[in-house]
Amino acid sequence: MGEEAASACSGHHHPLGEQHNDLREESRIYMDYNATTPLESEVILAISEALHEAWGNPSSSYLPGRKAKAIINKSRENVARMVGGRAEDIIFMSGGTEANNLVFHTAVKHFWEGRGASEVNGQERSHHNGKSVLPHIITSNVEHDSVKLAAESLSREGKADVTFVPVSKVSARVEVEDVMAVVRPTTCLISIMLANNETGVLMPIRELCRRVKSLNKQQPAPRILLHTDAAQAIGKVRVDVQELGVDYLTIVGHKFYAPRIGALYVNGPGTTTPVFPMFFGGGQERNFRPGTENTPMIAGLGKAAELVNTRLPEVETHLRDTRLYLEQRLQDVFGKEKIHFNSHFPGSETLPNTCNVSILGPGLQGRRVLSGCKKLLASVGAACHSDRGDRPSHILLSSGIPPEVAANALRLSVGRGTTRRDVDLAVEDLREAVQELEGRS
Amino acid sequence: MGEEAASACSGHHHPLGEQHNDLREESRIYMDYNATTPLESEVILAISEALHEAWGNPSSSYLPGRKAKAIINKSRENVARMVGGRAEDIIFMSGGTEANNLVFHTAVKHFWEGRGASEVNGQERSHHNGKSVLPHIITSNVEHDSVKLAAESLSREGKADVTFVPVSKVSARVEVEDVMAVVRPTTCLISIMLANNETGVLMPIRELCRRVKSLNKQQPAPRILLHTDAAQAIGKVRVDVQELGVDYLTIVGHKFYAPRIGALYVNGPGTTTPVFPMFFGGGQERNFRPGTENTPMIAGLGKAAELVNTRLPEVETHLRDTRLYLEQRLQDVFGKEKIHFNSHFPGSETLPNTCNVSILGPGLQGRRVLSGCKKLLASVGAACHSDRGDRPSHILLSSGIPPEVAANALRLSVGRGTTRRDVDLAVEDLREAVQELEGRS
Repeated sequence: MGEEAASACSGHHHPLGEQHNDLREESRIYMDYNATTPLESEVILAISEALHEAWGNPSSSYLPGRKAKAIINKSRENVARMVGGRAEDIIFMSGGTEANNLVFHTAVKHFWEGRGASEVNGQERSHHNGKSVLPHIITSNVEHDSVKLAAESLSREGKADVTFVPVSKVSARVEVEDVMAVVRPTTCLISIMLANNETGVLMPIRELCRRVKSLNKQQPAPRILLHTDAAQAIGKVRVDVQELGVDYLTIVGHKFYAPRIGALYVNGPGTTTPVFPMFFGGGQERNFRPGTENTPMIAGLGKAAELVNTRLPEVETHLRDTRLYLEQRLQDVFGKEKIHFNSHFPGSETLPNTCNVSILGPGLQGRRVLSGCKKLLASVGAACHSDRGDRPSHILLSSGIPPEVAANALRLSVGRGTTRRDVDLAVEDLREAVQELEGRS
Repeated sequence: MGEEAASACSGHHHPLGEQHNDLREESRIYMDYNATTPLESEVILAISEALHEAWGNPSSSYLPGRKAKAIINKSRENVARMVGGRAEDIIFMSGGTEANNLVFHTAVKHFWEGRGASEVNGQERSHHNGKSVLPHIITSNVEHDSVKLAAESLSREGKADVTFVPVSKVSARVEVEDVMAVVRPTTCLISIMLANNETGVLMPIRELCRRVKSLNKQQPAPRILLHTDAAQAIGKVRVDVQELGVDYLTIVGHKFYAPRIGALYVNGPGTTTPVFPMFFGGGQERNFRPGTENTPMIAGLGKAAELVNTRLPEVETHLRDTRLYLEQRLQDVFGKEKIHFNSHFPGSETLPNTCNVSILGPGLQGRRVLSGCKKLLASVGAACHSDRGDRPSHILLSSGIPPEVAANALRLSVGRGTTRRDVDLAVEDLREAVQELEGRS
């Protein structure tokens, strides 16, 4: 480990992070930062320190326990600051999948509890024409599987009605009016991602929350709860729960140079906003999420949040500049006619780092092009779907991209350490791969 | 981090592990290995390597992704070997709390699915005198909170009937006959820990499984499922799922010098033995537990399992020798009359490392004695209960320890690196603390 640690810590700190060692060594260009990020060396350092020094049980009252507890509390503050919340609003958990599932579990449970609590409207809310009425959940048709499948499972088991609002085929956004149009008296949750992982499109969460809140004021309790999965947005654009107005926000470490752990922001958990735990146990995280705390990973999450807090404007500029340069180079090398950007939609803002591009032409399916690349590491869509073969991404199809274009899509997502030289090499690599494929045909 | 790594890796390897740096420096004697263990330096090394080199998304098909996947697979094999199972029987998850909760969730769901499946007996199993009959779960009254509260929550919510079989006040064990006596036609799960965390008593899981399996053969499906939480046993005594005959076994990393992550052993998940996931998402862990894999922590878990696989006999001998020496020293220093061992029960085997002892006398409550200690770090019971003040442990009371003895209990649990000199210092520390307290009164 001495060597590992030494090489990771020594010298060459790019102010915005660094291209990772083994990628450099193998002269690979990683452009799949939306799938996962390497860890910042400061984050690794924080994890290592905790592994060595803060291994005590945070529930133990002697020094090693208290040390662990202190690290967890400090991380909680940094994570809270990153999203504009209070420390007590942060519940650490294993990752985004858990966070998203917990929100869905909570909303359904809250519906039934709230029905009991507000007896006056209980009848109206839960029965309609003598038929039992289920809680209703609204989400979009371009969500991550941890939202999509959680919703589908509730629907399949007869525990909730779910409406999947399609994104606009023009803007690739969930349009606020489309959401409002499907709200019912039984709607208990609206869950829409903050930024899409494939197109990079930013969803109008702020406006949506404003509209729903004014509706909530007119309606009897329980109110409609608002959730956004911010996995792809954090660390790339400013994310502020108060500006957004959400009740819940999902935080996923490994998308912002932190380890594989996550957190759920809840606006006043258990008081202002309900949380019904899925696990029962030793009382950790105020019983919202028991289980002995993963101190080292929490330490890393906190450090990565601290880095976002201090560097975000600089990082965002770098990501945007680099992505724009990448788009320019793609156009220069392949010609405007041969390129279609699946991350450009009229009227929609997008993540600064995400370039979803199709190189047009027969035989240039995304997977074929990538497997012809010698340096570029990228993907054709979400990593979870990497076993789906050559079927075009349902997210791109839903966003109005024609199937023959979607089939050729490459998701190129740049990171803090991606340089213009990396871009040049990646585009050259793509050019050669495409030439090779076209020569073959 | 260079320094950290260097000091952790340099020299002084005790064959059975090492007392941890910061404990040495502060001349503290840690004897709370049942609460949590430090990480072995080899485990930290495995985690660090993965943090640096295997940060790719294990679902990505390019090299960094495949590297991560390979590490996860290797860990799975080591963890499986540790408990005598097959690699495909291991489902990685965030920890013991999640594993235990998943078993309870699964058992209840399986009951209802099974009821549908076996229509002939459906009527009989789920209705009795026109009243709906709930699935029935049997557990003990000395389980960890992640079993106890999971069971209580199902009972409170009307989802299951739960019988908490009391342990014998003589043997402190769950007696097989007592369990068999409460089995009903609706019993779907028996969950009994392998070793108690406070008394160290080993429960007769093997015999219990044998009895239940012969009952299962006589009964119509669905069978009674058998679960044991092996959190405290692994790394201290041999644990073999085939010898035991369990369907599920909970594995908790931070009790055997691994990081804060866990796994559930399931005998043929989804085929021989049901698993109903609590989360839905990106398909990881064959959909039994989705969420991007925590590669570094899984790497650490695998390395720690490997160490158990190679060193267990040696470790077990060391733990037993050290604990016996500790008990001898306590008797020598305080006198036989002044000492009561809450981990000695006629006819019961116990964990080799756990000495639960009360120093008898007024004003010598466990918490007071420990806070008078200058070197010894130990606890009065489970760390999760550290906020319970001076109430004696319900586990000790349930095990037949009189209240005035239980109030004075100290749980001293030794580790791989605990030396005889550590024992001498700890006992001397206790002697001084007790002298001080008795002088005061």
